[in-house]
Amino acid sequence: MPLPHSLSALPWTALVTVLAILFYFYTGVRVGRARRKFGIAAPAVTGDPDFERVFRVQMNTLEWMPVFLPLLWLCAAYQGDAGAAVLGLVWIGGRILYMIRYSEAAAKRGPGFGIQAAACVALLIGALVGIARLMLFSA
Amino acid sequence: MPLPHSLSALPWTALVTVLAILFYFYTGVRVGRARRKFGIAAPAVTGDPDFERVFRVQMNTLEWMPVFLPLLWLCAAYQGDAGAAVLGLVWIGGRILYMIRYSEAAAKRGPGFGIQAAACVALLIGALVGIARLMLFSA
Amino acid sequence: MPLPHSLSALPWTALVTVLAILFYFYTGVRVGRARRKFGIAAPAVTGDPDFERVFRVQMNTLEWMPVFLPLLWLCAAYQGDAGAAVLGLVWIGGRILYMIRYSEAAAKRGPGFGIQAAACVALLIGALVGIARLMLFSA
Repeated sequence: MPLPHSLSALPWTALVTVLAILFYFYTGVRVGRARRKFGIAAPAVTGDPDFERVFRVQMNTLEWMPVFLPLLWLCAAYQGDAGAAVLGLVWIGGRILYMIRYSEAAAKRGPGFGIQAAACVALLIGALVGIARLMLFSA
Repeated sequence: MPLPHSLSALPWTALVTVLAILFYFYTGVRVGRARRKFGIAAPAVTGDPDFERVFRVQMNTLEWMPVFLPLLWLCAAYQGDAGAAVLGLVWIGGRILYMIRYSEAAAKRGPGFGIQAAACVALLIGALVGIARLMLFSA
Repeated sequence: MPLPHSLSALPWTALVTVLAILFYFYTGVRVGRARRKFGIAAPAVTGDPDFERVFRVQMNTLEWMPVFLPLLWLCAAYQGDAGAAVLGLVWIGGRILYMIRYSEAAAKRGPGFGIQAAACVALLIGALVGIARLMLFSA
C-alpha cells in the first residue's frame, strides 16, 4: 500500500493553509472596519445588525477553522497534496461567497455556506478512506 | 531512545480527530436547531437563556479545540498512537456529558467539564514528557 | 536543497506550542474569575465593560490561535526548530502585554497586539519562503 505522505512535504496544502489563514485574517480586518463605520467600539460586539453580520462572518469562519484545517491535512497526508489543495481552494471560494452574501443579508448566506461545507465533507471522506486503508493494510 | 512517531502514521489518533470534529460540528447543528426552536434569528446570539446555553456549549467546545487537538497530536507523536487516542476518546466522552448537562442547566456543567479538562492535562503531561526526552537524549 | 524537517522532531516548537496553549488557557481562567468578580453568571458574556474586556482578551487570543499555530509549525517545518520557536516566544510575549493592557483599558491594547501580529507576519514569511523553495527545487 502507498505510505502516508510526510506532512512537511505537502507544499500545495501548506500554501492553501496560508491562503485560508490570510482569508480568515481578512474577515477580522473587516470587523475592525465595520466597528468604525457603524460606531461599535470594542469590547462591544452587538448594537447594529449590519455590524453583527460582519462580525458573525468572522466568527463563523473561526468556528470552521478547526474543522477545515485538520481535515485538510489528514486528507493531504493520506490522499496526496494536489487533491487536498484543490478541495481547500473550493473551501476558500465558498467562504468568500459566504462573506460577500452574508454581509448583504443573513438570508443570502446559504450557497457559500453549502459549498464550503461540501468541501469539508469531501476532505472528511478522503481522510476516513485513508485512515481505513492504513488500519487494514498495515496490520 | 525511541524516535518520535511520524504524524501521518497515527491512524487511531487521526480517527479520534475526525470523531472530535464530527462531535464539534454537531454542537453547531444544535445551535441551528435551537435558533428555530427559541426564535433567535441570525446574527443574534442572545435573547433566551435556553438558547444561550446551547450556543455556549458550541462556543466552549470551539474554545477547547486549539487546546485539545495540538496536545492530542503532540502526545501521539511522542507517546504513540493508542494511548493518545484513548485519552482523546475520554475527552469526547467528557464533552458529550458537558453538552447534555449544560443544555439542561448551567449549574450542571461541572462533571463533564472536569473529565475533558483532565483528559487534556493527561495529554499535556504526555507531550511534555516526550518533549523533555527528545531534548535530553537527542543532543 | 535542505529537506523539510519532520514535524515530530521539533521539540522547541512543540514546547512553545504547549506554552501558547497554557497561556491561552490562562486567559480563560481569568474569564471565570472575572465572572465571579463582576457577577456575570454563565451563559451571559455581556453586562459590564470590565468583564467584557477580560472576555474579549480570551476571544481575541482564540481568534488568533488558528493563525498562529499553523504558521508556527509551517515555519518550523521549512526553516527549522529554533527560529520558529523564538518567534513563537515573541508572539506569547506580545499576547501577555495585550492581555495586561486590554484588561486596564480598550485603548491600551495596541502595542501588544502589534507585537504578536508582527511575530505572525514573520512566521508567515518563513512559511512562504519555505513553500516556494520546496516547489522550485523539488520538481
